[in-house]
Amino acid sequence: MGAREVGLPELAPFPEPHTLPERVTIWEVGARDGLQNESTVVPVEVKLEFLDRLADAGLTVLEATSFVHPRWVPQLADAEELMRRLSRRAGVRYPVLVPNERGLERAVAAGVEQIAVFASATESFARRNLNRGLDEQFAMFEPVVGRAVSAEGMAVTGYVSMCFGDPWEGAVSADQVVRVGLRLFDLGCSRLSLGDTIGVATPGQVTRLLTAFADAGVAMADLSVHFHDTYGQALANTLTALRLGVSNVDSSAGGLGGCPYAESATGNLATEDLVWMLDGLGIQHGVDLDALVRTSVWMAERLGRPSPSRVVRALGGGRG
Amino acid sequence: MGAREVGLPELAPFPEPHTLPERVTIWEVGARDGLQNESTVVPVEVKLEFLDRLADAGLTVLEATSFVHPRWVPQLADAEELMRRLSRRAGVRYPVLVPNERGLERAVAAGVEQIAVFASATESFARRNLNRGLDEQFAMFEPVVGRAVSAEGMAVTGYVSMCFGDPWEGAVSADQVVRVGLRLFDLGCSRLSLGDTIGVATPGQVTRLLTAFADAGVAMADLSVHFHDTYGQALANTLTALRLGVSNVDSSAGGLGGCPYAESATGNLATEDLVWMLDGLGIQHGVDLDALVRTSVWMAERLGRPSPSRVVRALGGGRG
Repeated sequence: MGAREVGLPELAPFPEPHTLPERVTIWEVGARDGLQNESTVVPVEVKLEFLDRLADAGLTVLEATSFVHPRWVPQLADAEELMRRLSRRAGVRYPVLVPNERGLERAVAAGVEQIAVFASATESFARRNLNRGLDEQFAMFEPVVGRAVSAEGMAVTGYVSMCFGDPWEGAVSADQVVRVGLRLFDLGCSRLSLGDTIGVATPGQVTRLLTAFADAGVAMADLSVHFHDTYGQALANTLTALRLGVSNVDSSAGGLGGCPYAESATGNLATEDLVWMLDGLGIQHGVDLDALVRTSVWMAERLGRPSPSRVVRALGGGRG
Repeated sequence: MGAREVGLPELAPFPEPHTLPERVTIWEVGARDGLQNESTVVPVEVKLEFLDRLADAGLTVLEATSFVHPRWVPQLADAEELMRRLSRRAGVRYPVLVPNERGLERAVAAGVEQIAVFASATESFARRNLNRGLDEQFAMFEPVVGRAVSAEGMAVTGYVSMCFGDPWEGAVSADQVVRVGLRLFDLGCSRLSLGDTIGVATPGQVTRLLTAFADAGVAMADLSVHFHDTYGQALANTLTALRLGVSNVDSSAGGLGGCPYAESATGNLATEDLVWMLDGLGIQHGVDLDALVRTSVWMAERLGRPSPSRVVRALGGGRG
């Protein structure tokens, strides 16, 4: 029996008596960051229906795919076909991940209007994930971001990964993350998404990093947070970011995805768990939770494994 | 690969620049609240080893069992034997749940030194769980608490269940919870444990309830919080309570237990997920996380199902 079936939809919101945004924009990353990290390769028809269902549920920013070389991410090798067949909705944005100039060319040819680049806050992860050093990564991004902004008029998000901890380096200093972030702004990024790629952060560390960005003159409106729930901290960290004025949050329907470096790890913050909290706090978000839960249950059936989202498990009738 | 294996134990704490307690006392409820709600009945030898391992891991308050009638909770029918065979550690408290005078007699005979009574914040749950009305429940507790305090010199905790939402009544008002709580203090309880029995609360509601208790003259030092992770909110709610000065938190090793009214629901806040956050915040707690994870992995093997704790899954080598 789900609690919502016995009266809890009437639970009135209880706004926090602190600074919290009135509205949060959810950047739904399930179709890209989520599916990229699932071992199952999902057919393009399922991805298209997933994106349609997410839009139906009221999500307005849907990360659709990645134009990385198919050799590296076979799960998203259908990026061109996906974008060609996608029925774009009015009022919905479909950003994609673009790793390099070749990826940008493919994205532009596919009619993409908004992109993200994926940077590392640490030397070790830059070398392992991007095959170049921390400083060298910017040389790769410069022509991509430059052309996307100048020639294509795109908005570009700079993902910063490993913002709190790195599997090879341990703790990551806020100064280092800010330095990487400011260089991405300098290149032309209009937004950063600060990622806790391995899910180790705790609320005090979130406060410290966001405060360091604020001290460097960055507006909270230009930052997104991207937490993984590997150690169960994602929602507490998100709450902390909201209190500091962040109003853009990355999350993944059903908690899809995970960290490839931790075999049993849970994935991104589940959009449903976020929406439950936002509803309780009286923060607007535009998402129909029941429709979203049905979507995640449907996707879990396609992936053949239960959703790690607590809300999906509780409301999905055991089918999540 | 767990992140801790590659350097993250060196992650320095990042205290929040707000009011947070320097030290938190964890009330480990896995052996009672956890095992009571598991479908598997665990042999007394396993329970005894579980309690020993929890004490070895540094936990200092271990809810050991319940002296409820075995007909209602067959999982804990071995309460007398458990308490007789338990090797009590210096510096560790072993409170037990006592439902009525008969239960208190049994507990006293078993050498129990600290008890808890289980009250309801709502009429509906009082009738269903206690078989009497909201006001009538106090008549049941009065002789129990009175005798425990006066004749036995025990400290008595008053659990207040359904403090935020109730499956039959929906939202529960803070005023009503405070009214129930104050009556428990009047009866002689020295502490309340405020329970979100169905896991629906969000941080603003936590703030409202704790503020209402403060307005009624209750010290945060006399309150514990008890969150369930059914909708993924437990740790964000706990963080909110800590910020308001609460320093006693109920949690369950491995997230054992669950709400019997939500079939697929996850259980209590996992002690490991709490400890991860406290470590990050630089809050003392005395628990050895690795020893605790090993204990939860061991118990998960005995129960034949994986732990719902994120930390146990991430650090337990997939065996959680």
